[in-house]
Amino acid sequence: MSVGDVATSNDLKHLLSLRDLDHDEWEKLLHHAQLLAGPRGREPLLAGRRFGQIFLNPSLRTRTAFEVACWDLGAHAVYLQPGTGLWELEYRKDVSMTGAAAEHVQEAIGVLGRMLDGIGMRSFAEMEDAAEDAEDPVLSAVAAASSVPVLNLESAMDHPHQGLADALTLRRHLGDARRPARKVKVVVRWAPHVKPLPMAVPHAAVLAFARDGHEVVLAHPSGCGLDGGVLSRAVELAGEAGGSIEVMHDKDAAMDGAKVVYAKSWGPRYLYGKQDAACAFLSDHLDWMVTADDMARTDDGAFMHCLPVRRGLVVEDAVLDSSRSLVLEQGSARLDVQKATLCRAMGVEP
Amino acid sequence: MSVGDVATSNDLKHLLSLRDLDHDEWEKLLHHAQLLAGPRGREPLLAGRRFGQIFLNPSLRTRTAFEVACWDLGAHAVYLQPGTGLWELEYRKDVSMTGAAAEHVQEAIGVLGRMLDGIGMRSFAEMEDAAEDAEDPVLSAVAAASSVPVLNLESAMDHPHQGLADALTLRRHLGDARRPARKVKVVVRWAPHVKPLPMAVPHAAVLAFARDGHEVVLAHPSGCGLDGGVLSRAVELAGEAGGSIEVMHDKDAAMDGAKVVYAKSWGPRYLYGKQDAACAFLSDHLDWMVTADDMARTDDGAFMHCLPVRRGLVVEDAVLDSSRSLVLEQGSARLDVQKATLCRAMGVEP
Amino acid sequence: MSVGDVATSNDLKHLLSLRDLDHDEWEKLLHHAQLLAGPRGREPLLAGRRFGQIFLNPSLRTRTAFEVACWDLGAHAVYLQPGTGLWELEYRKDVSMTGAAAEHVQEAIGVLGRMLDGIGMRSFAEMEDAAEDAEDPVLSAVAAASSVPVLNLESAMDHPHQGLADALTLRRHLGDARRPARKVKVVVRWAPHVKPLPMAVPHAAVLAFARDGHEVVLAHPSGCGLDGGVLSRAVELAGEAGGSIEVMHDKDAAMDGAKVVYAKSWGPRYLYGKQDAACAFLSDHLDWMVTADDMARTDDGAFMHCLPVRRGLVVEDAVLDSSRSLVLEQGSARLDVQKATLCRAMGVEP
Repeated sequence: MSVGDVATSNDLKHLLSLRDLDHDEWEKLLHHAQLLAGPRGREPLLAGRRFGQIFLNPSLRTRTAFEVACWDLGAHAVYLQPGTGLWELEYRKDVSMTGAAAEHVQEAIGVLGRMLDGIGMRSFAEMEDAAEDAEDPVLSAVAAASSVPVLNLESAMDHPHQGLADALTLRRHLGDARRPARKVKVVVRWAPHVKPLPMAVPHAAVLAFARDGHEVVLAHPSGCGLDGGVLSRAVELAGEAGGSIEVMHDKDAAMDGAKVVYAKSWGPRYLYGKQDAACAFLSDHLDWMVTADDMARTDDGAFMHCLPVRRGLVVEDAVLDSSRSLVLEQGSARLDVQKATLCRAMGVEP
Repeated sequence: MSVGDVATSNDLKHLLSLRDLDHDEWEKLLHHAQLLAGPRGREPLLAGRRFGQIFLNPSLRTRTAFEVACWDLGAHAVYLQPGTGLWELEYRKDVSMTGAAAEHVQEAIGVLGRMLDGIGMRSFAEMEDAAEDAEDPVLSAVAAASSVPVLNLESAMDHPHQGLADALTLRRHLGDARRPARKVKVVVRWAPHVKPLPMAVPHAAVLAFARDGHEVVLAHPSGCGLDGGVLSRAVELAGEAGGSIEVMHDKDAAMDGAKVVYAKSWGPRYLYGKQDAACAFLSDHLDWMVTADDMARTDDGAFMHCLPVRRGLVVEDAVLDSSRSLVLEQGSARLDVQKATLCRAMGVEP
Repeated sequence: MSVGDVATSNDLKHLLSLRDLDHDEWEKLLHHAQLLAGPRGREPLLAGRRFGQIFLNPSLRTRTAFEVACWDLGAHAVYLQPGTGLWELEYRKDVSMTGAAAEHVQEAIGVLGRMLDGIGMRSFAEMEDAAEDAEDPVLSAVAAASSVPVLNLESAMDHPHQGLADALTLRRHLGDARRPARKVKVVVRWAPHVKPLPMAVPHAAVLAFARDGHEVVLAHPSGCGLDGGVLSRAVELAGEAGGSIEVMHDKDAAMDGAKVVYAKSWGPRYLYGKQDAACAFLSDHLDWMVTADDMARTDDGAFMHCLPVRRGLVVEDAVLDSSRSLVLEQGSARLDVQKATLCRAMGVEP
């Protein structure tokens, strides 16, 4: 069972993956996000609603943006963090629960669904077994157990709110928030890090830019390929939108003519479960840090990153501090986008 | 000084133990809970009020239900967790505070009472010294220090909101939320676990079902007796309501004719302070897990548990996943009940 | 660059240090605090606003008072705690971020400023390098990165909300919240502890009482001097207000004729970075605990402490439990004062 199956298995307006949305839903969410960036986004459209956000992993933007989005729209956000003030949750089926987890999502989400109008879930990839991660096991179990809409606040495989915010930011940057003003070359570029990170964000970025019909170049060292299923879907979406996806391993050539450089680190899948080797891989590719010289190869390209970003490792300070950086605009767009997905989940037309 | 003495030492509408409520208060709380389960529970009855909830131990339902209850009624809940973002609190009198605790409840609760309209406190049993637990030392100290009503969010000895929710759930199950539709056999049944747990929930369950006049059978292995004072009070309450309390050690015989099986694990008191021996005791009694076969011995009995519950250890999946399980209804009733106790604490007639 | 420079480098209504406020601002904040202690403090003066409070260190009063202040005034407070549910933040410039911190305040505060109307920051002194602490490096970096007003929720050097609350409490105690009813002798007295603490609170207390023109006696063991820059500024402020600052090492002589004894522990600066020696210093001065005998030397003096306070170490129970103690009044005044600083930050005249 894939996440997509869950999403369509009932009439709940889950938002689990950018793979699932149809074209109209994608456009509608972005249009609503733009609308909600204005005065409409401070009206009590969701008066009295309650949204629960469950974080298995840390968050700054996602959590704050949902809390503020709820407040701005007259709703209330409950913040839950298993492991801190709340026991750990089990999500596997048919297990004797003799470990650390004191409650199963079946009961936890079951009860929460009776107190809340929507549930958000953050659950990063374990990065031990790529096939298991590809099933998005925690998010899938939560969606299956929930009687209310579930929003993906970054799962093993996808980060749809980031992808939506990135698409909106680029549309705005190109001059028209209502549509991609033109097709441009977008380089989604791998970056080094201190530890291997999951692929949810590059997945979301490639899916989002493919949906908007851009010429997407995915640049990464050999061995760092994204999930095959996601890439196939991205190619399909790019085709429908008149765009393209190309994979390159030459970071310099990739930059030529780029209008956008979207940097992000992630760990090589063939080293999942091998932390030391993965860290060594990262150390071997420190030259993938995005520098001002790299940006000089582009066609006056903008710089994007989902944040948090490590300065002096993922990207040079000079790039982040330049007028080419859109990172704060991306962060700001999160608030607009999350208002739109909350309205969709709760059946309110903004 | 017992908790009950504190509760009556001033006019504050504390809710510290189900032992203390008089008959009219018990009925009124349940009636209000049922009323607040409807549209009345979404009106701003507590507009502008502030409720602080302090958790020394983890929580999902209690915390979320109070936060949502406040929101639904126009109030605001502050969530405080000593040990995480807040130092530990001392509750003992006349000590030189040279340990981990940086503040005494005398000052902490004293100040909070000047900013809040009510305070909830969770403080589990230490399970080192049964006589000390029986005094409910933390809750008692908090109630004594508070200038505003204090609600017990599960203390060493009692979990009144759980007991209220359980009584309401059973009333609803039997067909009339306004009163126990009939007297039924309710088995409060001990269950195994990975570690010894406190007795607050079985205490609350026995007190609640006794108050509603049911035929309560308390089934547990020899050595797992509940607190004598609580049991005496339960017997007294059962007598007043036309019910009964019986203790049995034969788990199979206990099930015969049961209309409700209420499972819960707790640790044997004679092994307090002896963690390894207590765990060995639990391991020796794994056959107390509630199974579909056990349920087959009942008179079409319903299954209840306060949650969180460990699947495959406390109860078989087949029981939890059957239509006989009321666990989600119990969780849902928590919201209704906690709205009622908030209204009582803050002097508002719903 | 000092904190003061940041505060005046743009038009934002930061509140970073009591050193920076001019006389009119100081008086206006205290007048507004008193006004907001009444019914005006429960009106939606800040309707729809959002305030983010970031705590690098624990809090009870500051955090609760801001959350309640926001609620009372129609605003919402977001609570963020780097290290728990949120990664650590880097604040230094030009570093390669290969350590624990996953995000720089440049981006974190940059994004938050686009979702919030004000940001509060708590960041205690590191107590490794006094010169570095004197720069208030974290607070300064946050203020410099923020596009919205920043409030100091206790930094390395100052705790302005505590100082404001202390001044208001003493004014009330002396009979007129609108002004210091008369000039009195206030002893800010060093106290022992289990570990060395920062100087932000004694700094704030001395600055606050100096601003109100009192006869301030700073009593501490030799070696525990406050920051020279702060003391100079306090002497300047005292001079302007007709008061005085005197430093004494004789704890008994200091008490003679005191109308207020303000106790607080802090670590000796010359032992910064030497934890064992600092603890030994504290142990050597246990006789600085404030006792009922000490209070008997005063002129019917009141007792003040910012809280949290360690009973039986910083002060005898008999003093805290006497009618001379103003500690709960100080805590209560925090709510009033923080309403006033929120209004100032957000440009609202109460």
